[in-house]
Amino acid sequence: MPFFYMMLAFLLGTTHLVADKTSKKPYILTLATTWGSNSRDIAETSMRMARLAKAMSGGELIIRVDIADKHKAPLEVLEMVKTGKYDMGHSTAFFWFGKDVHLGFLSNRPFGMTAPEFTAWLYHDEGLKFLKQIYQKHNLVAFPGGNSGMQMGGWFKKEIKTLEDLKGLRMRIPGLAGKIMSKLGVAAANMSPGELYGALERGALDAVEWVSPSLDSKMGFHKIAKYYYTGWNEVGSEAVFIINDKVYAKLPDHLKQILIVAMRDAAYDNLIRHQALNTEAWQKMIKEHPDIKIRTFPTKIFNAMKLANDEMLAVFARDYPLVKKIIKSQDNYMKKVRAWTKISDFSYLKSESLDETDF
Amino acid sequence: MPFFYMMLAFLLGTTHLVADKTSKKPYILTLATTWGSNSRDIAETSMRMARLAKAMSGGELIIRVDIADKHKAPLEVLEMVKTGKYDMGHSTAFFWFGKDVHLGFLSNRPFGMTAPEFTAWLYHDEGLKFLKQIYQKHNLVAFPGGNSGMQMGGWFKKEIKTLEDLKGLRMRIPGLAGKIMSKLGVAAANMSPGELYGALERGALDAVEWVSPSLDSKMGFHKIAKYYYTGWNEVGSEAVFIINDKVYAKLPDHLKQILIVAMRDAAYDNLIRHQALNTEAWQKMIKEHPDIKIRTFPTKIFNAMKLANDEMLAVFARDYPLVKKIIKSQDNYMKKVRAWTKISDFSYLKSESLDETDF
Repeated sequence: MPFFYMMLAFLLGTTHLVADKTSKKPYILTLATTWGSNSRDIAETSMRMARLAKAMSGGELIIRVDIADKHKAPLEVLEMVKTGKYDMGHSTAFFWFGKDVHLGFLSNRPFGMTAPEFTAWLYHDEGLKFLKQIYQKHNLVAFPGGNSGMQMGGWFKKEIKTLEDLKGLRMRIPGLAGKIMSKLGVAAANMSPGELYGALERGALDAVEWVSPSLDSKMGFHKIAKYYYTGWNEVGSEAVFIINDKVYAKLPDHLKQILIVAMRDAAYDNLIRHQALNTEAWQKMIKEHPDIKIRTFPTKIFNAMKLANDEMLAVFARDYPLVKKIIKSQDNYMKKVRAWTKISDFSYLKSESLDETDF
Repeated sequence: MPFFYMMLAFLLGTTHLVADKTSKKPYILTLATTWGSNSRDIAETSMRMARLAKAMSGGELIIRVDIADKHKAPLEVLEMVKTGKYDMGHSTAFFWFGKDVHLGFLSNRPFGMTAPEFTAWLYHDEGLKFLKQIYQKHNLVAFPGGNSGMQMGGWFKKEIKTLEDLKGLRMRIPGLAGKIMSKLGVAAANMSPGELYGALERGALDAVEWVSPSLDSKMGFHKIAKYYYTGWNEVGSEAVFIINDKVYAKLPDHLKQILIVAMRDAAYDNLIRHQALNTEAWQKMIKEHPDIKIRTFPTKIFNAMKLANDEMLAVFARDYPLVKKIIKSQDNYMKKVRAWTKISDFSYLKSESLDETDF
């Protein structure tokens, strides 16, 4: 800004104008999100955060979001932020079990807390403490990135009535839930998303676990596998925002606060948005395909799954002392919060369902 | 700031300093909250909002919160903000049925949506549109003020097994739920909070509906009335932030944005915080008083309550065209979102409860 203009502005008393034009040299951060144009619903979480940060800072904090189509490394977001290639990232620790097993346990687990319960553990119990502690080792500052709510148990071509029905069943189900299913005799298969529909159609797969109605509806599995099982496998998966700690340290205090609140707002909205998206997608799906059958696994199968889960967790707890602490903290909180969930929302929903035989 | 100092700072290149010291004349707003020192858990929602606004604006937006102990008019927050005595308020429209019946229907209703469902209606369906439209008539700009989650059905000295058991029962239960109970023959009584425990103890009252464990535990009803009924009456009550529209219009854009996001963050946190508070309070209560018995009203009673509710809503809808629109919008959304709730969190919680006979 030319000096004479600044003088003039000052003399005229428009110091606000001077300040806005001279002092707000913007801080520009880059963010890589794991999600691309085929997952816009969750890529939106970073974009919302960036919009809020810009608006609240009056343009002083600009975050440039690159979706996966641009950076082409959806599974390398952790490294890219650690090494400074990007300043920030939005992803899910679910993908990072292989990099650091601790990270995975901060994104929830099979038979875990529901999204509202998990969010209470994060913000009002010990969750944030563990998040900070574990990401610090990677030179990252981490914040919850939003829960996408309950994921479904998957699409099955045949109804599953006994444990026998699971033996040899060819199913796409990754992660910890895949390990549990393997213990029950399922042939857990992994293939690229593009191959799944074809494999299910020609019988190379008997079942596919994907996400929930909003994303499942785009994959079309409901047209060829009519049994839609309710969830136990990813009971409210939490995404994560990460920031290179050197970049974070350089931000002035008020921009740190703006960034933190923008991330938290985007994370909360992620949960409510997914609830709304799943609501609409499920309506559309069940109207167009009234032959979809909702099923919940029988108690015997659940009991076997839970046993397999307990065994699996025991091994993790034995090998990793900090994982043991996280599991214990989650278990303690789940027991307490579930007692409240049961006498509040659950009881109400149950009393509302008394006159219905099926969903 | 002396002119020479500004010149010096500019010449030295410390324009940031100049800007911070000269331009950030703070905007100071006053806020009256309905809640006082005996309801700190919810008064905290305004205080959190004020802390965030200050931190994000670097001190440019200061909100001075007066709790009810200070302004002594907890039920007059609407008027105080309309008339400009305060710039902002935090309260619940539940109290304002008598002032403008439309307002009450924006804070949820008996047999309504759960807190997560209601939040999705607000932010991702038609809720905000109605909120804006109705408060505008009062010269107020309104934003959701946070849901406090499921409220319980109340403390009863005797178990309620039939509709006959409700006839002549003396119960404290205000608002729409009180009207419904009256239709079922309950003698709905209203008295000041301080009188309730004594009345219940000496038998002048047979039952008291209050809030949920976090607040109920402070009232002590569980010591003298052992049957704790699950909720249907206030299924996730939503508070509200209101701002005098002239005050709001004067804020610069970035402070408007900071204010909006701070309110939204505080509102989301209100829900999660109450979940955490109820979790802890219920744990403590049931441990110290294992003789508390959780009960849900039998189906016949629920059906009678729902019928009474439908009749009551039909009268409101007949008398107020805009209330009719709100009810219709909520009913439409509830039907859709409930279908998703049932196959997601509800099914999971149900499968987790199979091995228990009581909750």
